[in-house]
Amino acid sequence: MTLSKTYVISIDDVRSAAEQLAGVAVRTPLIENIKLNEIAGGRVFVKAENLQHMGAFKFRGAYNQLSRLTEDEKKRGVLAFSSGNHAQGVARAAQLLDIHATIVMPKDAPPLKLAATHACGAEVVLYDRYKEDREKVALAVAGESGAVVVPPYDDPLVMAGQGTSALEVVEDLTAMGIKPDQTLINCGGGGLASGSFTVYYDAFPDIQGYVVEPDEFDDVKRSLESGVIQTVDFGARSICDALLTPSAGERTFPIIQDCGAKGLAVTDDQARAAVAFAAKNLKMIGEPGGVVSLAAVLEGKIDTKDKVTVCIISGGNIDPEMLADCMARF
Amino acid sequence: MTLSKTYVISIDDVRSAAEQLAGVAVRTPLIENIKLNEIAGGRVFVKAENLQHMGAFKFRGAYNQLSRLTEDEKKRGVLAFSSGNHAQGVARAAQLLDIHATIVMPKDAPPLKLAATHACGAEVVLYDRYKEDREKVALAVAGESGAVVVPPYDDPLVMAGQGTSALEVVEDLTAMGIKPDQTLINCGGGGLASGSFTVYYDAFPDIQGYVVEPDEFDDVKRSLESGVIQTVDFGARSICDALLTPSAGERTFPIIQDCGAKGLAVTDDQARAAVAFAAKNLKMIGEPGGVVSLAAVLEGKIDTKDKVTVCIISGGNIDPEMLADCMARF
Repeated sequence: MTLSKTYVISIDDVRSAAEQLAGVAVRTPLIENIKLNEIAGGRVFVKAENLQHMGAFKFRGAYNQLSRLTEDEKKRGVLAFSSGNHAQGVARAAQLLDIHATIVMPKDAPPLKLAATHACGAEVVLYDRYKEDREKVALAVAGESGAVVVPPYDDPLVMAGQGTSALEVVEDLTAMGIKPDQTLINCGGGGLASGSFTVYYDAFPDIQGYVVEPDEFDDVKRSLESGVIQTVDFGARSICDALLTPSAGERTFPIIQDCGAKGLAVTDDQARAAVAFAAKNLKMIGEPGGVVSLAAVLEGKIDTKDKVTVCIISGGNIDPEMLADCMARF
Repeated sequence: MTLSKTYVISIDDVRSAAEQLAGVAVRTPLIENIKLNEIAGGRVFVKAENLQHMGAFKFRGAYNQLSRLTEDEKKRGVLAFSSGNHAQGVARAAQLLDIHATIVMPKDAPPLKLAATHACGAEVVLYDRYKEDREKVALAVAGESGAVVVPPYDDPLVMAGQGTSALEVVEDLTAMGIKPDQTLINCGGGGLASGSFTVYYDAFPDIQGYVVEPDEFDDVKRSLESGVIQTVDFGARSICDALLTPSAGERTFPIIQDCGAKGLAVTDDQARAAVAFAAKNLKMIGEPGGVVSLAAVLEGKIDTKDKVTVCIISGGNIDPEMLADCMARF
């Protein structure tokens, strides 16, 4: 299915973002692995966005937005609220562009992500993920400072920036003369999914898109099934800290919905097993929330036999203890 | 300096190997990382051969040799002696080509490497690394079976095959319009180094090549300094199990020597720190022996300021406990 309506972003916005990011973002590799192909019974390509600056795709959207700020906006600084990867992406983009960044992060964000955000020179404000609303906390801080808020996903420039990852996949597959049957995207708020599907469905109208979420955070899956944006249960928990978003965005969801994407969900243990698989076989480090699409392939959540499937490792910022635990158990 | 003499391999042999490997070996990515550049004060490119089939460059040389065997030789099967990565490379190439493989491995090889070699369907024969001569053990087994021996490094087809990795680096750098100042290659028996230098010095005659070894296995460094092939002390030990070769080869050393390469050595702790750096910052898994050239860059063993430096992660087959230990300590 192709996108027929006029959406908040188009393929041209993603192409424009790619120009903005040229020579700044890492052009990450697309990995094929014999063992993974054998398990899938087909060809599987893994987009390695864990090799992006700061170990996650988030740098793309952040830099696409920050690099377009006016001089006056740059002087006022930027503010982001994030569980970790968006925080680091914004912090690094701001550092490169010489902009002051304030980042509102949950107190229980992985220490690695907190440390990396600090290391980029950002000012970090902590809040309680389960008791406080991060947008309210962030806006309160922004109100005081006059800083420009960089939303984590529901923003045209952020969505277009994230989509540049898929643009590279399309380029690589086209160069190899390969047409993918299906693509699986890790999904929190839908920034990566909406940007990526904009690209995939433009290049390959017959492709089937899937969003993959943690079991207890399967709001986008339920939203797609019901046709209305659903939210997660307030008591939901998952080790996939990159994907703990309460609901898809008002801008991201219509794109995901109208291209005909379907929803999949994986358990924390399936994510752990995929972390271990990536480390042992792909020799790459993915974080739990970064490997859910790989987990869906490994677990046979969709039919991959004799098909060409594209999935993504969207982030690799995992604490060493968690990595060791995954590798020891799976 | 360019190679003026007629050597056992030339750039044409490497190009021929690249044709043999096209569509079979992984065309591994060349990675640039902001943090690594900051530490080096220049641009550093890391060739990610840990993303090669079986997690190491060794597949290249093995497949280049095995794919050229006659039908009669293929029927007799192949035999290799290896501490692990060559074992896996040969086992996988043999499996793909439907050839029976017998692999002689040290008893203390990492369990991960033993298991992966078994998993490719190879027959594994164990020996004592410190008491027995692996070539003698291997030849005894080969004599019985009539199998073709695949030497780990001192062989023209193996050396040419390993050099294909550098051919990809040259292609990638040339596409970016970048001319490297220096290249560092992890060195055991010199198969990768001789193949790679053949390529690098052909493309960039002004480049400076370095071999990097573990401290107690710095025989090639000493050989380059003395002009005569040196061997390691029989009591030498290192965690860099991929590089524990007693001496450079009679075919590999003259190439390394005559191109004007220099030798560097790193301690086990420096290798551990590089494993941790690769995991935490590059989001890639390298094994100790696979990251010694990265370690040399991180430790400032050569001047990298305002220069373009190429190093390599030549393998990523590290046991989870060792990885966890490196990440916890560094």
